[in-house]
Amino acid sequence: MADHTDPKQQCSVHPDTLAMVQRARQEGIETVWDRAQAQEPQCGFCSLGLSCRNCVMGPCRLDPFGEGPQQGICGADADIIVARNLARMIAAGAASHSDHGRDLVETLLAVAEGLAPGYQLTDLAKLDRIAAEFGIAADLPPQAKAKELALAMMAEFGIHKGHLTFAKRLPAARLDLWQKLNIAPRGIDREVVETMHRTHMGVDNDAVNILLHALRTALSDGWGGSMIATEVSDILFGTPQPVASQVNLGVLKKDQVNIVLHGHNPLVSEMIYRASHDPALIDRAKALGAGGINLVGLCCTGNEVLMRKGIPMAGNHLLQELVILTGAAEAMVVDYQCIMPSVGQVAACYHTHLITTSPKAKFPLAQHHEFTPENALEKGREVVRLAVENFARRRPERVFIPVEPVQQVSGFSVEAILGALGGTPTPLLDAIKAGQIRGAVGVVGCNNPKICQDLGHTTITRTLIASDILVLDTGCTAVANAKAGFKDLSGAALAGPGLQAICEALKIPPVLHMGSCVDNTRIIALAAALANALGVDVDKLPIAAAAPEWYSEKAAAIAAYAVASGIYTVLGVTPPVLGSKTVTDLLLTGLEGVVGAKFAVEPDPEKAAALLIRQVESKRRGLGLDSRL
Amino acid sequence: MADHTDPKQQCSVHPDTLAMVQRARQEGIETVWDRAQAQEPQCGFCSLGLSCRNCVMGPCRLDPFGEGPQQGICGADADIIVARNLARMIAAGAASHSDHGRDLVETLLAVAEGLAPGYQLTDLAKLDRIAAEFGIAADLPPQAKAKELALAMMAEFGIHKGHLTFAKRLPAARLDLWQKLNIAPRGIDREVVETMHRTHMGVDNDAVNILLHALRTALSDGWGGSMIATEVSDILFGTPQPVASQVNLGVLKKDQVNIVLHGHNPLVSEMIYRASHDPALIDRAKALGAGGINLVGLCCTGNEVLMRKGIPMAGNHLLQELVILTGAAEAMVVDYQCIMPSVGQVAACYHTHLITTSPKAKFPLAQHHEFTPENALEKGREVVRLAVENFARRRPERVFIPVEPVQQVSGFSVEAILGALGGTPTPLLDAIKAGQIRGAVGVVGCNNPKICQDLGHTTITRTLIASDILVLDTGCTAVANAKAGFKDLSGAALAGPGLQAICEALKIPPVLHMGSCVDNTRIIALAAALANALGVDVDKLPIAAAAPEWYSEKAAAIAAYAVASGIYTVLGVTPPVLGSKTVTDLLLTGLEGVVGAKFAVEPDPEKAAALLIRQVESKRRGLGLDSRL
Repeated sequence: MADHTDPKQQCSVHPDTLAMVQRARQEGIETVWDRAQAQEPQCGFCSLGLSCRNCVMGPCRLDPFGEGPQQGICGADADIIVARNLARMIAAGAASHSDHGRDLVETLLAVAEGLAPGYQLTDLAKLDRIAAEFGIAADLPPQAKAKELALAMMAEFGIHKGHLTFAKRLPAARLDLWQKLNIAPRGIDREVVETMHRTHMGVDNDAVNILLHALRTALSDGWGGSMIATEVSDILFGTPQPVASQVNLGVLKKDQVNIVLHGHNPLVSEMIYRASHDPALIDRAKALGAGGINLVGLCCTGNEVLMRKGIPMAGNHLLQELVILTGAAEAMVVDYQCIMPSVGQVAACYHTHLITTSPKAKFPLAQHHEFTPENALEKGREVVRLAVENFARRRPERVFIPVEPVQQVSGFSVEAILGALGGTPTPLLDAIKAGQIRGAVGVVGCNNPKICQDLGHTTITRTLIASDILVLDTGCTAVANAKAGFKDLSGAALAGPGLQAICEALKIPPVLHMGSCVDNTRIIALAAALANALGVDVDKLPIAAAAPEWYSEKAAAIAAYAVASGIYTVLGVTPPVLGSKTVTDLLLTGLEGVVGAKFAVEPDPEKAAALLIRQVESKRRGLGLDSRL
Repeated sequence: MADHTDPKQQCSVHPDTLAMVQRARQEGIETVWDRAQAQEPQCGFCSLGLSCRNCVMGPCRLDPFGEGPQQGICGADADIIVARNLARMIAAGAASHSDHGRDLVETLLAVAEGLAPGYQLTDLAKLDRIAAEFGIAADLPPQAKAKELALAMMAEFGIHKGHLTFAKRLPAARLDLWQKLNIAPRGIDREVVETMHRTHMGVDNDAVNILLHALRTALSDGWGGSMIATEVSDILFGTPQPVASQVNLGVLKKDQVNIVLHGHNPLVSEMIYRASHDPALIDRAKALGAGGINLVGLCCTGNEVLMRKGIPMAGNHLLQELVILTGAAEAMVVDYQCIMPSVGQVAACYHTHLITTSPKAKFPLAQHHEFTPENALEKGREVVRLAVENFARRRPERVFIPVEPVQQVSGFSVEAILGALGGTPTPLLDAIKAGQIRGAVGVVGCNNPKICQDLGHTTITRTLIASDILVLDTGCTAVANAKAGFKDLSGAALAGPGLQAICEALKIPPVLHMGSCVDNTRIIALAAALANALGVDVDKLPIAAAAPEWYSEKAAAIAAYAVASGIYTVLGVTPPVLGSKTVTDLLLTGLEGVVGAKFAVEPDPEKAAALLIRQVESKRRGLGLDSRL
C-alpha cells in the first residue's frame, strides 16, 4: 500500500479508514493491508487459475508462457483446470449462502413447532405470500402454515423436488432457456455436490460443460438458498421498510457500551438486539458509568439489522479490524462468513471480547457462546451482559473515534420500493419508458485490499446516478455509498435531473439499499417483476450489475447467478481465469449468446461506469426506447 | 521415472505395464509418467497444504521455513489453511461417491416406476433386507417396496432426516461417540455443502473444528452415499458371489472385438454387458472376422462387472492409457471418476473409440452417447454396435498384447463371505480367537505415479497374508493383488499356516476381493458385523486399513471415514498437510484419543506392513487374545 495523494494509491477513500490505518501503524498493530503487502508477489499460477491440487498425483501447474508443461499429470489442460477451479469457487459461494438459508429454515421450523422461544413469526402477510408460492393452503393458521413452508423449503435442499419454486418468479422465456441449456437448478445442495463431483479428477473434462453446471449451481443459490434466506428472514424478523440511520465509525459512542454485530446471518444479531433493550442490562450499563447500550453493525449482519431495525452501520469488510482499534468496542459478536481470523489478535490488543456463536465458525482467541433456536434468547442476554460488564475494562485514554457519523436512509425491500410506487412497478416502468430514469444497476459486493477501499463502489455509483440511472446496492457497497452521502435524501442533488425529480417526488435517495449480500435476491426478484410487467425476458431490461471490489467466493456465485439470470455484470477484480483463453472468452463474450448476458472485467471504476451506462442505453434501444448511444 | 533394476525405481512391478510403457516410448506416445516427470519439481506450498486460493484477496502462501508470511491476507495461519484444504479434499471425495449413489437411487426409482426398461430388480432378497433396515413394510410387492426404498434413500440426501439409516449397523458405542463429538452425519449432501461453507473465508477458523466436520462429511459418504451405492447396485444387478475370472492386459483378445469398460458406476457397463450378448451384434462381429465380443474391465467399473459377472479385468488406474496402446481396443466406454483426460489423445493415435456416457463427464476427443435410465438399453446396443463396426478399422500389425492372463477368484460380498462361513461371522471370529487368523486388513485405494505401480499394494498384502492376516481388497489394490496371483486359490500357499488352512478348508484365496472403491462400505459393514458379534466397538477389533498408493480425493474421504469408524489407516502417500503441525499431529496422534483410531503415513510398504501387523497384534492383546507383540 502506497500513501500517495492520488486516491487510487491510498488504501481508502474514506477518512475513518485512513485515520484508523494510521492509528494501527502507530500502535504497531498489523492489518489486512500489511498482510496483503507481505503476500506480494502473489503466485502467478494460482492467480491465473493454472494450478491444480485436486489430487495427490499433483499438485500440478501449467506454464502460462507455453514453454513448460501444458497439461497436468492426469492430462488436464489449462481450459479444464481453470474451469474446474472457477466452478469450485462458485460452488463454495453457493454453499455458503445456501447453508445460511438452511439455518433460517431450520429456525422457521423450530418456531412453527414452538421450540424457539426467542423467535416469532413477525410478518404474517409475507408468510401468506410465500406460502402461496409454495402451494400451501391459504386457510392454515400461521404456525401450521410456517411448518408446511419450512418443510417445503427443506425439500428444495434435497433431491426429490423437480425445480426450485422461486424460479417461477421469472418470465417463462428464462425458465425455458434454462431447460434447453440443462441448467435449471434442481435441489439446492445437489448442485453444489455435483460440482464437487464433476471437478474431481477424471469426471468432467470439458470446460464448457463444467461452466454450464457452475451456472446451474449459482442459480440454485440465487433462486434457492439465498432467496430462501432473504424471504425467511423477512417472515421471522420483518420485511424492511424505509428507515433513517447513520453510518461510519462515528456510530460508536464514547459514553456507551458498544457492541459490534459482525457476520451475515440475523439469527444471532436479532437476539442481541432484543437483549440490548433489557432494562436490567441497561441499568447495569448505567451503573458502570455508561450512557446505555449501543449496537452497531458491520458487514452483512450489520446490513440485516440496519435494514430492519435501523441499527447504525460501523463499516464494511475492511473496517472489521479497524473498528476494534477505536478502543470503544466492548464486544464484537460474530456469526459467520467474511470474518477475518485476525480479529481475535486485534481484539487481544484491547479490552474487546470477540464472541463466536456458531458451531460452524470458531475463531482463534475468541470466547464461544453457541446459539441454537432453542437457547438464543438466553444466550443473547448472556452475551450482552458480558459486553456490559466489559465496559469497566475499557481504557478511555485509548478510545479514538475519528469521525462524526453520516446520515442515511435504508430499508428498501422489494415490498418497500413497490409500496413507495403505490403498489405496482408501473410508475417505475413509466419513468424508465419516459427516459426520466434510464435504467437501474445493482452495485454490490465486497471490499478487497487490492483496491482503494470504496473507490470502485462510490465512483461507479456517483457516475451512474448522475446519468439518471437508479442504483440498487447491497453488502459492502451499501456501506460505501452511505458513507459517501448518497443515501441521505440530500443525495438526490447528486443525481441527474430525471432521477433527481423522481427522488424528490418519492422522498427517496437515488441509491436504494436493498440489504445484505444474500439480499441480492431482492434485486433479481425486482428484475423479474419488471420483466414480467414489461412482458420481456430479464436480459432485455435496461439493467446491469457491478461488483467493483469483490473478494469472496460468494461474490463469484452471485455474479454467476446474475449473468445466468440475464444480467450483464462488470467485475472490478479479475477472477483467476486468465490462464484459459476458452474460459476467459466464454465469460467475456460467449455467454452472451447462451444466456443473453456476459461478464466484463474493468478495474478502472470510471471505465466500468461507462460500460454500465452503455449497457443500459443499449438495452433501452433494444426495447425501442430513446437511447443516448 | 528411472529404469533401474531395483523394482522401487521402476514404474511398475508388473510386466504388462513395463512392456507397454516401453512401447509407448517407441511409439512416441506420452503417458502419465512422462507428465509426472514434467511436473517436477512440484510446488512446495501446495504439497505442504500452505497455499490458499479460497478468495481473491489471495492467492496466499505461507512460508514453511518461518521466514516469510505466516498468515494469509485474511489472517489465516498454517493450521487454518491446511485444515481447510484437507476438508475440501475430503468433501470433494464424499461428493463424488455420494453423487454416484444418487444416480443409482434415481435409477432404482425409475425401475420401480416402470420407466427404466433396461434395468430390473435382480436381488429381491437383498431388497427385502435393505427395505427392512429403512423400516419399510415387509409385505409390499417388490416394485412398491423399491419405490418406498428409493424415496427413503433420497430423503437421506436432504436435510429433513435426523441420522443416516445405515449407521445403525454400527455398535451403539460408536454412534454414541459420534453424537458426543457432534460428528454423526445428518443429510448426505448437507455435510459436503457445510464443509464448503465452513471453509469459505471467515467462517470456520479452528483447525480442530474444521477437521471434526470433515470427519462427519466423510462419514456421510461411508455410511451414506457410498453405502447406498453399494446396496442399490446389488439390488439392481445382483449381490456378488464368488466367481472365477482373469486379470492383466492378457485378457484382451487378438481375435475378438474388445470393449474396455472404465470408470466407476455399473449403470452403463451393465447395459453394455447385456448388449454384448445380443446375437445380432455377435453375428455382425463374426461377419467382420472377429471371434466374438470380449468385454474387459478397467478400474472400478471393471471391479463392478468383475464382481457380479466375472468380466475379466484389464488393469487399474495406471493402465488406462496403456490398454489403448495394445491396439486391440475397439472402444473404451467410460462413465465417470478417475478417467484421465489424456485417454482421448491416446485413443486418437489408434482406431479406438473413446465413448463418454454421462452428462456430468465429457472428455476431449470423445464421442458422447448419453445414457439415461430410460434409454440405457438402446444406448448399450448403439455403443456395442459402434465398437463392433470399428473392428474393421483395427490394424492387426499394431496389436501388442504382452502377457498371458492370470487366474483370479472375485465376488466376495459380505453376503458371500458369511455364506462361505455358513451364514454367521462366528467361524471367522472363532478362527481369530484361536489365532489361526490374526485379524483382517483392508488394503485399498488407487495407483499414483509417485510410487512404483502396485509395489505398495502387493508388498503389504504379501507380508500380511504370510503373517496369517486376512486381506480384504477393493479398487486398484484388487487388480494389483490379482495380477500378483494372490487371488487364485493357489494363493493360499503364500499365506501363513493358520490362514492357509482356513483358505484350503473354505476354498477361498487369502485375499478376498470385496469390490470397487464405493464398496469399501462392504469392508466397514463387515467390521461392524464383527464388532456387534463380539460385543465391542469397531476400534477394539484386530483390524486395520491401508491405502498404499492413493491419489484421489475420494481416497481421502474413504480413509477419513475408516478412521472415524474406528479403523487405523496407513497411507503410503503423504497428504498435503505437513505445513501444519497441529493438523499433522491430530491426524497421526490426536485422533486416537478422539475416535479410537488414527492415521499413519509410511511410504515404505514393508514398514507399512509392519505397522499394520503391530496394530492387529496390539488389538488382539486388547481383547485378551494371544498376541505376537
